[in-house]
Amino acid sequence: MGKVICAGLGPGDPDLMSMRASRAVKAARQVAYFRKKGRQGNARRTVEGLLTHDCIEHAMEYPVTTEIPFADSCYVDALANFYDAWAGRLADLAATEDIVVLCEGDPFFFGSFMHLYIRLHGRVEMEVIPGITGMTGCWNAAGLPVAWGDDVCTVLMGTLGEDKLAHHMIKADAIVVMKTGRNLLKVRRALETAGRLDEAWLVERGTMPGQRVVRLVDADIVDSPYFATVIVPGNGRRPMVVE
Amino acid sequence: MGKVICAGLGPGDPDLMSMRASRAVKAARQVAYFRKKGRQGNARRTVEGLLTHDCIEHAMEYPVTTEIPFADSCYVDALANFYDAWAGRLADLAATEDIVVLCEGDPFFFGSFMHLYIRLHGRVEMEVIPGITGMTGCWNAAGLPVAWGDDVCTVLMGTLGEDKLAHHMIKADAIVVMKTGRNLLKVRRALETAGRLDEAWLVERGTMPGQRVVRLVDADIVDSPYFATVIVPGNGRRPMVVE
Repeated sequence: MGKVICAGLGPGDPDLMSMRASRAVKAARQVAYFRKKGRQGNARRTVEGLLTHDCIEHAMEYPVTTEIPFADSCYVDALANFYDAWAGRLADLAATEDIVVLCEGDPFFFGSFMHLYIRLHGRVEMEVIPGITGMTGCWNAAGLPVAWGDDVCTVLMGTLGEDKLAHHMIKADAIVVMKTGRNLLKVRRALETAGRLDEAWLVERGTMPGQRVVRLVDADIVDSPYFATVIVPGNGRRPMVVE
Repeated sequence: MGKVICAGLGPGDPDLMSMRASRAVKAARQVAYFRKKGRQGNARRTVEGLLTHDCIEHAMEYPVTTEIPFADSCYVDALANFYDAWAGRLADLAATEDIVVLCEGDPFFFGSFMHLYIRLHGRVEMEVIPGITGMTGCWNAAGLPVAWGDDVCTVLMGTLGEDKLAHHMIKADAIVVMKTGRNLLKVRRALETAGRLDEAWLVERGTMPGQRVVRLVDADIVDSPYFATVIVPGNGRRPMVVE
């Protein structure tokens, strides 16, 4: 009997993988990873050159990504069926030997693997290896100490409504907005409403090739990629710098 | 000319250090780390057995920790002077060869190193290596997928007032409370006020020896150690499990 090992790969730079994840990846005899149809997928790209030559690869291709609105029941059904099917497949594959599921960032922080985890729980032995989250990679890449003292730190998805975004931005000290992509203009307006726009940074492809760090006020909003994160550092209680 | 390298060590288990941090630690000819007076310090404990035998060690001992209230100006002055002095010392030490500052978790997420970073910025070359945050280690250790879909995830310090804690807990989907320690009873009351107590988990010494994971309602509140984190998983939009 093998097990399902989920390896959190971290923010994109393979050198930021944990020792344990790196070992699991290099020893894997079969791996599985999510990707959009027709793409290599970012998890797979992160382990390029690390897999053994005879490692068996299973690409778990999302049936839908952004073609259908999230709230649509077709979207929910299509994804639920997709996760059900892959959970069954992974359980079968793990019956003979370990299978390593490759996940960007940390598996338990907005990771697709969680949908497999809840389905496989109790059916098969699992091991989850934590990873550096994408946002952690981004604030380090930008040289931005993000949370201090007793700061309230809030992580928001750019897919939320503008009013909800602004409401949470007003209440928080440190702010991270993920999944900005086509929501970036809305995110910018919400930060302006909250009076935090001037402190906001946009980090594109953090720790990955083509990384770009720019103040959000100076950013080209239209042309921002999917892997873009907005960061507003906090300002909690901190011993003053003596000038 | 050397540089100041800050190595984020992750949540406590040395095997969860990144490849890059591990290399930096093993190659270090001099290291520095924060600790409470008279203690080994958690950062130093994490690298036990990894340093070369002739590595020079600099223990940066906090002048105060919990003896003086945070708001007291003596506390602020004592810590500011402490960080000023060590920033100067590290700049001097880095003049001849690299010095590696060892930091628990991620250096830019509630890390003491940030106080050195803002003082050293522009004075000396620096490199900061991200780490898996303590909270990431904790929710993985507990087997708790924490944030889903469009969840709002809020990180709070147990040192905040009860009303403020409860207010943020009501607004958030996923909740993490750090620095619980002697604040745990207050944190528990705030979660009860917010109607989230039943979903809350207490993770003590996550990923470290003596790790304990327990529902907060069942926890022995009085006897909880400093390294304890409270986690309430979110419940965002997610494809249903087909039963």
